[in-house]
Amino acid sequence: MAAEGSLKLLGLTVSPFVIRVRMALQLKGIGYEYIEQDLFTKGELLRKSNPVYMKVPVLIHDGKPICESLAIVQYVDEVWAATGPSILPADPYDRAAARIWAAYADSKLLPAWVGIMWAATEEERAEKVDDTLAAIGQLEEAFGKCSKGKAFFAGDSVGYLDLVVGSQLLWFEALQKMFGVVVVEVGRAPLLAAWVKQFGETDTAKEVVPDVDTAVEYLTKLQSRRAGSTVAQLLS
Amino acid sequence: MAAEGSLKLLGLTVSPFVIRVRMALQLKGIGYEYIEQDLFTKGELLRKSNPVYMKVPVLIHDGKPICESLAIVQYVDEVWAATGPSILPADPYDRAAARIWAAYADSKLLPAWVGIMWAATEEERAEKVDDTLAAIGQLEEAFGKCSKGKAFFAGDSVGYLDLVVGSQLLWFEALQKMFGVVVVEVGRAPLLAAWVKQFGETDTAKEVVPDVDTAVEYLTKLQSRRAGSTVAQLLS
Repeated sequence: MAAEGSLKLLGLTVSPFVIRVRMALQLKGIGYEYIEQDLFTKGELLRKSNPVYMKVPVLIHDGKPICESLAIVQYVDEVWAATGPSILPADPYDRAAARIWAAYADSKLLPAWVGIMWAATEEERAEKVDDTLAAIGQLEEAFGKCSKGKAFFAGDSVGYLDLVVGSQLLWFEALQKMFGVVVVEVGRAPLLAAWVKQFGETDTAKEVVPDVDTAVEYLTKLQSRRAGSTVAQLLS
Repeated sequence: MAAEGSLKLLGLTVSPFVIRVRMALQLKGIGYEYIEQDLFTKGELLRKSNPVYMKVPVLIHDGKPICESLAIVQYVDEVWAATGPSILPADPYDRAAARIWAAYADSKLLPAWVGIMWAATEEERAEKVDDTLAAIGQLEEAFGKCSKGKAFFAGDSVGYLDLVVGSQLLWFEALQKMFGVVVVEVGRAPLLAAWVKQFGETDTAKEVVPDVDTAVEYLTKLQSRRAGSTVAQLLS
């Protein structure tokens, strides 16, 4: 564990945005104090640390708060550049590709699968399943280009895009359990299917990702308090 | 002008996403071939270079395409790290702040002012004006923190967040001209009002930003072809 001054993370165990930050800290071997938040009764520390969004995750480093999961992961990579593996690729073109696909995973894939859980009708659910599978199709192609034949998006080991997509896998499992939806199906996305397996076997995944039942329980609790909630309240 | 291999930019003169990329290249002193696109009849090169989004800007460097304006600006900063000024701040915390506020400017401010132009009713327009002014209020606070009392978001000279917000100023002018909306009003946002003036006097702004009439003409043309258009088709 590296020396790091005071480091606190405000989080929600099942949030993909939080999971990716915890994965980044795990990769770097950085210790931190984890403080679970209740997003329905947002506490004083969360309101004070992230007044604009009041969302998790917030990393508080020596008293200075940083919000937005992708900004935090890059911050961790830059502050602890000399500690543990690099999270962003070294080559500028590979870095750009990782950033572009990370933005895609968060703006296209994530809202699509959240939509499956939150659909009001079966017709709407089927539409969101289609959107999810279309996004997975794009990421299957992206995997082919980014991985260059290796096991992970980043090559031989886990990197930025692995964390961004990998932090969503918990909910793919939950979707299968709750709705029978197979998000990454070996016939349609063979590269991603192999990656899901490999990623799940890393220490990063094993140490950070909670059991699927935790996600299922959280969703069940949310469904009973659904009125007026948005995606932002769901998971960040 | 630095040696840069083959560099092409597919763009739209009035697009804030394109303007910020051109500003980054101007700051670095990098020459490039600029190829204006017609977004209603997306050409072969755009379709081939950016098959996922088919949007501008696309930077093609030695035959390799990079899309998404924020990824391109960071790419330019990284590839030509030794050429011209740094665009991203050097300090990781300042970099995180610049990235967080850049995301804010694009996800909150930009859709709000696009909404003013695109509102179907006066009531909707008033709502979008309120959203725009609320976002400007947040950015006024951000300016106070990021600039540390200097003239620009990045301090003594123009940086990442200056480009991201500065690339939208053309449309603030257009909004005033077409709808009488004053987006950055000195009484409500004195720091930003001073910054708008300073930014407009930089070579970066003078060399890249087209005349406001170009934007007004473009919007007039768009309005006549409005049906089925989205924000993405408007400006990227």
